[in-house]
Amino acid sequence: MVYVGVIGSGSCSPREGLLAYEVGAEIARRGALLVCGGLGGVMEQACRGCMEAGGVTLGILPGTRRKEANPYVSYALTTGMGEMRNFLVVRCSDVLIAVTGGYGTLSETSIALKEGKKVVALQFPFALPDTLRAGSPVEAVEMALKGQER
Amino acid sequence: MVYVGVIGSGSCSPREGLLAYEVGAEIARRGALLVCGGLGGVMEQACRGCMEAGGVTLGILPGTRRKEANPYVSYALTTGMGEMRNFLVVRCSDVLIAVTGGYGTLSETSIALKEGKKVVALQFPFALPDTLRAGSPVEAVEMALKGQER
Amino acid sequence: MVYVGVIGSGSCSPREGLLAYEVGAEIARRGALLVCGGLGGVMEQACRGCMEAGGVTLGILPGTRRKEANPYVSYALTTGMGEMRNFLVVRCSDVLIAVTGGYGTLSETSIALKEGKKVVALQFPFALPDTLRAGSPVEAVEMALKGQER
Amino acid sequence: MVYVGVIGSGSCSPREGLLAYEVGAEIARRGALLVCGGLGGVMEQACRGCMEAGGVTLGILPGTRRKEANPYVSYALTTGMGEMRNFLVVRCSDVLIAVTGGYGTLSETSIALKEGKKVVALQFPFALPDTLRAGSPVEAVEMALKGQER
Repeated sequence: MVYVGVIGSGSCSPREGLLAYEVGAEIARRGALLVCGGLGGVMEQACRGCMEAGGVTLGILPGTRRKEANPYVSYALTTGMGEMRNFLVVRCSDVLIAVTGGYGTLSETSIALKEGKKVVALQFPFALPDTLRAGSPVEAVEMALKGQER
Repeated sequence: MVYVGVIGSGSCSPREGLLAYEVGAEIARRGALLVCGGLGGVMEQACRGCMEAGGVTLGILPGTRRKEANPYVSYALTTGMGEMRNFLVVRCSDVLIAVTGGYGTLSETSIALKEGKKVVALQFPFALPDTLRAGSPVEAVEMALKGQER
Repeated sequence: MVYVGVIGSGSCSPREGLLAYEVGAEIARRGALLVCGGLGGVMEQACRGCMEAGGVTLGILPGTRRKEANPYVSYALTTGMGEMRNFLVVRCSDVLIAVTGGYGTLSETSIALKEGKKVVALQFPFALPDTLRAGSPVEAVEMALKGQER
Repeated sequence: MVYVGVIGSGSCSPREGLLAYEVGAEIARRGALLVCGGLGGVMEQACRGCMEAGGVTLGILPGTRRKEANPYVSYALTTGMGEMRNFLVVRCSDVLIAVTGGYGTLSETSIALKEGKKVVALQFPFALPDTLRAGSPVEAVEMALKGQER
């Protein structure tokens, strides 16, 4: 099973949320697992899309209370490590999809690139030469899963 | 859903493995989630019991390779933190059951007690006044789940 | 330079504080470095003894504010990892001395033993077969430094 | 005392090394503490500059062996957390100076910006709107220390 990390801001516009929702749904339709930071915004909409399409979601939380997780997290891991948990999101993922995002997402993207993992960018505001740019949620998941098999 | 951490040695005797298997199976029968360190020995037998009884298991691995997980881990988290991942096993669990075990298990037990979490001991070789002693796998899970509700 | 971890409760009696103070002072007199969790109680008295004898102390803090460190910490590391920083205290130390202590100290002791590090116990309330029992602060440091050379 | 994190590649050109050396020396001359990842390249040259100017350097290492530290690290912390230790470098620093650098340095920069910490960039190849651009090592340290007082 391929573990796809979805990273992005903890708050997002409705339009960005829709992108995230579609990414999550496509991950479920393709039979992959969604890994994320477990909170709101992009994370929540991606989890919602995944769960409503029948998929499973893992949320790796910064705090120690499981109830901080958004309601679409199948299994929530409380780390108590704060933003350091970003590293775990990357470590646990085979490939990542960045949907919009700020400096937190940029940190995850750069960690992933440093570790040699593929990062697909969907309306990600930072231009990094080693990310793959996708034009739509379905294309993003397609690019992410290409060549992965576990 | 209650998250039950099962802790114990990475290698164990057949008799200890049977205890762990029964603990895992009872966790599944009671509808709880099994969290563990994802490797062999007690962890593997508990996961096997849980999965064969229809339950779900999370394995929080010390290394960075998912294939290090035992085959009965439903979802494996690679941390790359080495033994420090013991902390995450405790942090993610609502309550813990120690099945036999050495110093690694003792570290998890003492972290859990320090954080005010219940620890049920099943043939755990260290005598700590604040653990609850169970006489059988079924009793261990019963004691663990008592009063938990999420 | 040998890095000696001093572990023990964050609050302690005057008599226990005196033991910790003497351990810290002896570490300084022997030219070793003191590593600890940076807070109060045993940690503070050990740091005070070390600093007043001309030594250097490292404090590895659970939180993110450097001012949480006791005033006798030469260099304070803010981790934001909570009790998980106990692991770092052990990882950074060549050898450890447990002065009294509760479950937090027991977790550090068992992690150290798991990792094959020497632990000297001075009035440590838990009986573990693999710790070395010292009768006085000077003897504790003597036992800790024996055979270490870096 | 102000803790200044110096981040940059683990290997660097002689010209980049000279910049790092000068940054480290200026940190020492200004009475601040240098924090870094403890390895080679920019980290080593910055430590060397700092130590040769009479300053103190902390190296937060990815591995578990203290001898991995470059020879100009005053106090080395072994974490065993791999690249995750980047987070600790940022957490321990009041302000950061990025000297050249790749994705690892970008991850540290973005974590720092996410946490609201000032980052001064000296020939840092990524253009981020919230970093401060310095034209020389002395200016970089001047900009870093401005307004800091602890």
